[in-house]
Amino acid sequence: MLDLLKVDSLEEAVSKLYNECKNNGLEIGTEEINVSDSFLRILALDVVANIDVPEFDRTVVDGYAVIAKDTAGASDTIPTILNVVGESFMGKPQDIEIKNGECVYVPTGAMLPKGATACIMIENTENITNDKVAIYDSVAEGKYVVKKGDDIKKGTVALNKGHIIKAADMGFLSSIAVNKIKVYKKLNITIISTGDELIDENDKLEFGKIRDVNTNLLVGLSNKYGLNIVNKYLLKDDEKLLEDTVRKAMTTSDIVVVSGGSSKGKKDASSEVLGRVSSSGVLTHGIAIKPGKPTITAYDKDTKTILVGLPGHPVASAILFKLVLIDLLYKLMNVDETDYSCIGVMTENIPASPGRMTIQLVNVDKDYNVTPIYGRSGLIHTLSVATGYIRLEINQEGINKGSKVNVYYL
Amino acid sequence: MLDLLKVDSLEEAVSKLYNECKNNGLEIGTEEINVSDSFLRILALDVVANIDVPEFDRTVVDGYAVIAKDTAGASDTIPTILNVVGESFMGKPQDIEIKNGECVYVPTGAMLPKGATACIMIENTENITNDKVAIYDSVAEGKYVVKKGDDIKKGTVALNKGHIIKAADMGFLSSIAVNKIKVYKKLNITIISTGDELIDENDKLEFGKIRDVNTNLLVGLSNKYGLNIVNKYLLKDDEKLLEDTVRKAMTTSDIVVVSGGSSKGKKDASSEVLGRVSSSGVLTHGIAIKPGKPTITAYDKDTKTILVGLPGHPVASAILFKLVLIDLLYKLMNVDETDYSCIGVMTENIPASPGRMTIQLVNVDKDYNVTPIYGRSGLIHTLSVATGYIRLEINQEGINKGSKVNVYYL
Repeated sequence: MLDLLKVDSLEEAVSKLYNECKNNGLEIGTEEINVSDSFLRILALDVVANIDVPEFDRTVVDGYAVIAKDTAGASDTIPTILNVVGESFMGKPQDIEIKNGECVYVPTGAMLPKGATACIMIENTENITNDKVAIYDSVAEGKYVVKKGDDIKKGTVALNKGHIIKAADMGFLSSIAVNKIKVYKKLNITIISTGDELIDENDKLEFGKIRDVNTNLLVGLSNKYGLNIVNKYLLKDDEKLLEDTVRKAMTTSDIVVVSGGSSKGKKDASSEVLGRVSSSGVLTHGIAIKPGKPTITAYDKDTKTILVGLPGHPVASAILFKLVLIDLLYKLMNVDETDYSCIGVMTENIPASPGRMTIQLVNVDKDYNVTPIYGRSGLIHTLSVATGYIRLEINQEGINKGSKVNVYYL
Repeated sequence: MLDLLKVDSLEEAVSKLYNECKNNGLEIGTEEINVSDSFLRILALDVVANIDVPEFDRTVVDGYAVIAKDTAGASDTIPTILNVVGESFMGKPQDIEIKNGECVYVPTGAMLPKGATACIMIENTENITNDKVAIYDSVAEGKYVVKKGDDIKKGTVALNKGHIIKAADMGFLSSIAVNKIKVYKKLNITIISTGDELIDENDKLEFGKIRDVNTNLLVGLSNKYGLNIVNKYLLKDDEKLLEDTVRKAMTTSDIVVVSGGSSKGKKDASSEVLGRVSSSGVLTHGIAIKPGKPTITAYDKDTKTILVGLPGHPVASAILFKLVLIDLLYKLMNVDETDYSCIGVMTENIPASPGRMTIQLVNVDKDYNVTPIYGRSGLIHTLSVATGYIRLEINQEGINKGSKVNVYYL
């Protein structure tokens, strides 16, 4: 009995699950929130600039608004003298128009008077009388000035649907007069770990048992990707108990992940249970990826629940959580972004695995040398010390020492 | 009056503030929390492994524990037949000892019987009778086996003080039987933005005014770096009001940041106020960095408050928030980590600024070509679209097109 599992490629697995979700009415809920509460939330609609930014020509320094040509030849030692014909005030309109030989005091951010084409920093000026100032600098047109709409034009799409809001985006949204945005609701997840050998953090350690690693690992990843953890369970290998727990979780959660019990051992019940509880049965049982082959996907249209069975091995479990579940969610929410990554140079040859994708944990040093970490997939320590991983796609050749590779951060 | 501000290098500014904090008894508080709640928290103590991981030799597959030599020559077509002399159970000790020609059924994670040196995956076996199994694979010693302590040895430092807890670390801590850790308390911050020209997100936009950008930008950065936002204020340029607000904030916050009003314009009150409210006055007024020169630091030993005046320009404000405040906090907490970054190749020459450090926003494309983004420092859009920034240190030459550069992500 050479029981080779029938496996999908990673891409097929994600596509099948995506199509099943889309064809059965899964819509991720949305909500309107304040920009100030939006860090790392995901836009559910394009955001359009409500105003030009800036809305008027303005100075970026404290100093004097001038006609640039008037300052030609001015220097530290030989100043040009200009007449001060007024002052701008921050936050107030300005209707003075300056002519050659004239200038207006402008504090940073204030509107330029008409006619002004540049500014002089106050450090490079000296008051002579109330209405005369010495200019010790010569500036080109546009110096220290920002023109109306330079940053962004009213009506243009500022941020796309699916964009993940970073700190800079929060400032940017404020600058275009957007203070509320529509984002996807945080999805609810239940995390179930299974295994007779596992004990949880509060149990006394017994010889022969091992600590449950996957629950906290998947809690951390859920935190990282903005999922709301509804519940977490550590279960013995008991098919009935697993089924009851999954069914209960499906009433409160958008996502149920079950780690462990997904390969073909005697006690593996995840595929049986996920098959029974879902409207179309198991979609994928086995992905052509190393590590992480024993991964299961399903979807239930009645409760609109995404179901994923992850390998028991922590490294595989973490990687498949990202590459199947999170990448599915990103696809459903139009997220165009990948995790930040870097390139580096391989210090060793990496063999490919014919017919399957390979994920290889690596370290990256300060000179961006990339070295594989060959831990066993059951050992979480390797994941903790790794900088990230490289992907060898399913039909990719091995990677030679000295080649450039893309490293995905964990 | 060529009023050049007396400025510190970035390094001097952070050192001065660090020394002032340390010499005046600033100790960042600590607390014990569950590992399950520790995502992105910072360790206040080294963590030592309580156990060997794994605690016993175990299998990483479902299958049969064997003596590797017994499988020599076995293949898909020519099996080796072994006697099944027992079964291991997950989470249970195992005291069988196998001899040549014998094997024991082992589910993933279970303890190996004595004498076993490798495992065979169940997919490569076939039951012949109750006590005989055909082996269709030949394995080397150690295959599919993890030895006691392979991952980490009991008593070794697993994670260092100052380490920021990632998802993988949460799993790792569980694996070494650590379920509670001592971390630094989240620091309280009050964010104050100042400027007559600014209106907040709830105000109706008037011509000549601009939206307050820095508050939400600094809220986002505070979220990113795990600070607890106690309060935020948008104030007009009014020195008395600013002083009252800062003094009030100092009673509830570990950190007060004031953005805007830190250069030498007519209405700049931040340095006056931060000087008056702090025990040793202003430590740094002006940093040799572009953008971001008008940055102020102070520390008050009575309330143990860190005070930072940031430039009004959003890009400068964001960068100095990271390079002064966050890097100070990281130094105080022994955080050894820098933000993830990448290397790329410059597509243009970048000039240095003599006598000051230069921060240049850049875009990085998929081939890791690095292109500078020349926005005005007042324009937040450039920060939102930038991949990150490069640093030209204070005495560094310019960077030539084609050079490798380190890009820091925002």
